[in-house]
Amino acid sequence: MTPIPGSVGLIEAKTHRFAEALPLQCGRSIAGYELVYETYGTLNAERSNAILVCHALNASHHVAGMAADDPENIGWWDNMVGPGKPVDTSKFFVIGVNNLGSCFGSTGPMSIDPATGKPYGASFPLVTVEDWVDAQARLADALGISRFAAIMGGSLGGMQALCWSIRHPHRVRTALVIAAAPNLSAQNIAFNEVARAAILTDPEFHDGDFAAHGVKPIRGLRVARMIGHITYISDEQMAEKFGRQTRADAKFSFAPEFQIESYLRYQADKFSQYFDANTYLRITKALDYFDPAAAANGNLAKALSPATARFLVVSFTTDWRFSPARSREIVEALLENGADASYAEIAAPHGHDAFLLDDPRYHAVVAAYLGRVADEVTA
Amino acid sequence: MTPIPGSVGLIEAKTHRFAEALPLQCGRSIAGYELVYETYGTLNAERSNAILVCHALNASHHVAGMAADDPENIGWWDNMVGPGKPVDTSKFFVIGVNNLGSCFGSTGPMSIDPATGKPYGASFPLVTVEDWVDAQARLADALGISRFAAIMGGSLGGMQALCWSIRHPHRVRTALVIAAAPNLSAQNIAFNEVARAAILTDPEFHDGDFAAHGVKPIRGLRVARMIGHITYISDEQMAEKFGRQTRADAKFSFAPEFQIESYLRYQADKFSQYFDANTYLRITKALDYFDPAAAANGNLAKALSPATARFLVVSFTTDWRFSPARSREIVEALLENGADASYAEIAAPHGHDAFLLDDPRYHAVVAAYLGRVADEVTA
Repeated sequence: MTPIPGSVGLIEAKTHRFAEALPLQCGRSIAGYELVYETYGTLNAERSNAILVCHALNASHHVAGMAADDPENIGWWDNMVGPGKPVDTSKFFVIGVNNLGSCFGSTGPMSIDPATGKPYGASFPLVTVEDWVDAQARLADALGISRFAAIMGGSLGGMQALCWSIRHPHRVRTALVIAAAPNLSAQNIAFNEVARAAILTDPEFHDGDFAAHGVKPIRGLRVARMIGHITYISDEQMAEKFGRQTRADAKFSFAPEFQIESYLRYQADKFSQYFDANTYLRITKALDYFDPAAAANGNLAKALSPATARFLVVSFTTDWRFSPARSREIVEALLENGADASYAEIAAPHGHDAFLLDDPRYHAVVAAYLGRVADEVTA
Repeated sequence: MTPIPGSVGLIEAKTHRFAEALPLQCGRSIAGYELVYETYGTLNAERSNAILVCHALNASHHVAGMAADDPENIGWWDNMVGPGKPVDTSKFFVIGVNNLGSCFGSTGPMSIDPATGKPYGASFPLVTVEDWVDAQARLADALGISRFAAIMGGSLGGMQALCWSIRHPHRVRTALVIAAAPNLSAQNIAFNEVARAAILTDPEFHDGDFAAHGVKPIRGLRVARMIGHITYISDEQMAEKFGRQTRADAKFSFAPEFQIESYLRYQADKFSQYFDANTYLRITKALDYFDPAAAANGNLAKALSPATARFLVVSFTTDWRFSPARSREIVEALLENGADASYAEIAAPHGHDAFLLDDPRYHAVVAAYLGRVADEVTA
């Protein structure tokens, strides 16, 4: 009997410290780093039912349930992960991990550099999707997981799943690549560059060493978030949600007047309070750099040829950040290789953010796909 | 015989000073203001061959030819306006006028407020498309032009042509509304709001009175321009022009690395040197406010019902700022009114900027349309 979909409940984050230095794509390495992670469900005796959830730009290891130290803090993919949910924690052992360089507990620019006793700040290296995947692989080693039943993620998280399938092919049974792209377009890079320009030119950025000055580049982070937010929502959705609705109390001033202005300012204020500017810069750069086909002269099929995983690729019709056409590039490359690839293009009005939302068709596709995987790994 | 398309040559800008105060939509009025303008071609004896060219966000009265005081400064629509060109100055008397509140010579935030002897700065009123049109109408009065053969413009310029047709219907024989929209979408407003946020939060903005502090909000203007620029170019064009091409000399740093980054920074630097922040804020607000249908309960046909002009509406397939669908809204409203409306949807790869470029099909449509107008007014 299918359990009633529920919450994984109160969740305590764990920390794993890695003594051995991790070599990074930039040529540097990082020693004595920590990764913060959460787990939901139970690892079976065969250690075959683990699913790794990779996060996107501004999320964390807190994928599902309520944070033990702050129960109102619900995981960012709680509608997807839990008992009876598409990623069913009554069948799978699910891991959420905060990436290296992030600002939610894993070692990053806000962490203390043991070499100096001060925050890394600007000196923290630029990490890549490949670096994240390698760090995640070491965490899997530490947890005794040699092969994942699934590695999954949306947006930048989907890129990590794709990278895993190439870089550590035998450790991935299935890869769920959702609302992702094989690389960023010039327009995607342009939006990232404007966001970075806003941060880099904020006088309180201090070349990344703002912590030493006791300030934060709030203005830059605000603008960066506003730009990002516009690209996460479809034009249609924005029109439906806000249209040209105005607030009654302003006119002929620069105070927020249209509802969309108030909404963006609210999102910007919230984000700039909790997010780290150095992290934002690095994660957008990791996005820009991700391009597995580059090493194969732009041939994505060739780049994906080491992959042995089965794939579920999902896109959303109104996603203009990573459009369905970009997901189809991945699917076509996989099919060219004779890989086992399923593709779902979900008609959803919400734009890129759709991957985070509770769309019944989307969730049904993921549930059905992982249902078959559960049958295999628990047989 | 059609003359060989050429330049209008060296052009001297003229200034007209208006003693009578102009009432503005915001409830204030402005006294003792000046408009800077240029003219090309010769007004005929019947005064029936005048064409008014309205400019968009960052352009000016300098539409065609070489500025007399700086011959390398070529007018922004020089490919469109000149002897033998689509707007044929051997047949028409063409006027380019810098709008009120701009920063290219007409009275605006950088001008001296006669009441204080200091630059208006933050105290300059928020002007609207309606205000610009009313100011232009007074200039037409001063030049003895009671009715224009055509009023035309692209983008925000097209909105002015549309506004003229409603507000001063009997003064407009034909209106050419190019790459425009009947109002801004929530997404359009959102992009404007981010650009404004970048300027308003620049610490050197000083609530708009930066001139008194001897500084300029360069950082904010740079980011604003970068955001705008992304929306002017199609994704396809950006991909073709820049793709993911990188410069060889940078990697794992925040220096410009992809060609698109260098390009955006270059555009931002250039723009922030010559443009005024208070003007940018006001023009984006004028864009946000423009919504003729609002006064008719959202019924655009009703809003356009006073218009007696004939219309040529032009859009470009890859324009995602003001998409063809927005132009078709205008055409449908006009047809609903039984107005004489022609529509050309030009297959062009350049996005919104296509209205400024030398596309042969686009220019042929405008040339043919204005050719018939020339036959009428010079008959």
